[in-house]
Amino acid sequence: MILLMYEPVPDHLQSLKNIAPQHEIVMAHSEEEAQRLIENAEIVLGNRYFLQSLPFARKLRWMQSNSVGVDLILKAKQSLIDKNITLTCARGVYDAELAEHTIALLLSLFRSLPSLRDEQNEGSWQRHRLSTLHGSSCLILGWGSLGKKIASYIKALGGKVAGVRNQPDDSLEGETMLFGSSNWRNQLPLTDALIICLPKTPETYHFIGKNELRALPSSAFVVNIGRGGTLDDMALLEMVQSGNVAGAALDVFEQEPLPAGHPIWKEPKIFVSPHVGRSLEGPVFRWQSLFEQNLERYLRGEALLNVVNYQKGY
Amino acid sequence: MILLMYEPVPDHLQSLKNIAPQHEIVMAHSEEEAQRLIENAEIVLGNRYFLQSLPFARKLRWMQSNSVGVDLILKAKQSLIDKNITLTCARGVYDAELAEHTIALLLSLFRSLPSLRDEQNEGSWQRHRLSTLHGSSCLILGWGSLGKKIASYIKALGGKVAGVRNQPDDSLEGETMLFGSSNWRNQLPLTDALIICLPKTPETYHFIGKNELRALPSSAFVVNIGRGGTLDDMALLEMVQSGNVAGAALDVFEQEPLPAGHPIWKEPKIFVSPHVGRSLEGPVFRWQSLFEQNLERYLRGEALLNVVNYQKGY
Repeated sequence: MILLMYEPVPDHLQSLKNIAPQHEIVMAHSEEEAQRLIENAEIVLGNRYFLQSLPFARKLRWMQSNSVGVDLILKAKQSLIDKNITLTCARGVYDAELAEHTIALLLSLFRSLPSLRDEQNEGSWQRHRLSTLHGSSCLILGWGSLGKKIASYIKALGGKVAGVRNQPDDSLEGETMLFGSSNWRNQLPLTDALIICLPKTPETYHFIGKNELRALPSSAFVVNIGRGGTLDDMALLEMVQSGNVAGAALDVFEQEPLPAGHPIWKEPKIFVSPHVGRSLEGPVFRWQSLFEQNLERYLRGEALLNVVNYQKGY
Repeated sequence: MILLMYEPVPDHLQSLKNIAPQHEIVMAHSEEEAQRLIENAEIVLGNRYFLQSLPFARKLRWMQSNSVGVDLILKAKQSLIDKNITLTCARGVYDAELAEHTIALLLSLFRSLPSLRDEQNEGSWQRHRLSTLHGSSCLILGWGSLGKKIASYIKALGGKVAGVRNQPDDSLEGETMLFGSSNWRNQLPLTDALIICLPKTPETYHFIGKNELRALPSSAFVVNIGRGGTLDDMALLEMVQSGNVAGAALDVFEQEPLPAGHPIWKEPKIFVSPHVGRSLEGPVFRWQSLFEQNLERYLRGEALLNVVNYQKGY
């Protein structure tokens, strides 16, 4: 049995049926229903109600998430391991939108668009001396499919790119320098824009904190498009307020939604993008084709796409 | 004699002296000084005081402007023609910054950044369904060096591009469709983003007005990065307010600075960028190298770069 944690559009449901004609396909519309249906499910597609129903699973072999970051699902990591369940994520599905949003945030910092908007709201016409992405040096933290796509966009716009990769030593990928764990901090003083697209794991908690931010030039910008908590938000706020960092745009936060009264709301040099790098969608979902592809692979006994490594956490 | 309408940095002055060792090089620091010095000048470099001193010129052969758009200087067109003066502009010098600013404005519309900033200022966390430049169809009005650069950036980001060129018939440039004057309006209903980078001439006055805006889909965005007046600003305001156009970002306006109390200031769907596509610069100017190159060409009797066609107006 295949349990869907979402309401499929007819085309997608028909595709699933065509791919798995021998399997019953059911949908959970509530937590209770999910907990009842999961007992006999071999496959779960989609996040909703999954964590609440997992304790009732008895035959589950594979869970396909619709998220890229699976840190929330991995709160049940031990249970997934004990039950021998394979977890796959939606890596890659949102890269185009996330990379575009990253460029939008980055350019808005270089061109001061948030403060121009504030000046518009005050009816104030002020011409400024602005900086440009072209000719600037960007350091991308996290060299997965998203980081690479962001890098290609920045290069097309005339910016310079280096990456930071989860490996000990530096390496070269094409013409792009990739710094490893022993050396990457030395690049910070040469960085005009730091772009964070790290997964959230125990190792990446507060990966960027006060020391790293202080090492940036005071003209530098910071963008976080990955997961909240990989950046120490309060350290960023302090470094921006003290003039150690010129500005930031955050799409993810340590607490989401950003709580009412949080001081970041009121800091004009930090732009609050309310987790819309991957914006709302539906009823047609961009992960449908990944789900269909992976279901075909599963039924043929082939290797699944985007299998999560429980040890790495992504 | 070469008259500079600006204070050159030492390196640039030295370059000019090396290029033209036989010529006296002087600088005007005031309108009065400019009017006195221009009497014996063969060459004027730079805009400042030029229009006020032109009536006093007796030997002037060439004027090099530091602007891309020369509509203001062409208020003295008849006098320039009568005195047989060649006018060259700064076309191309600011393309990289202007094209980058255009992409910043365009992405800020697709990703709703101005309204997200307003929501930040209200402390309001609202997730949205947003659109993307990638996969969208952009129509670029004006196919000069700037329009082409904008096109290349949009394509690199996954957008589709067509151009509109000052010619009667349609044509193909590489893979890019260029529409001529008889057909371009038919493209408006298929356009997700209209990007205006037209010179200001009698022919382009209100080139985009109510009829053209009404022909766009109601989801479309408009960016003006060229010159104010080529777009009918009040028609845009009306079309945005009536929901015929989704939003706009303007870097140029019919009246600059945008007057206090002008209704565009208060329209949230129109982003006011206060003519910073080419932002403030100095004392090192980006046109220095063009001035030096063109001075070399002039003294060698070669064709000058960026000669303005008095009939076309650019």
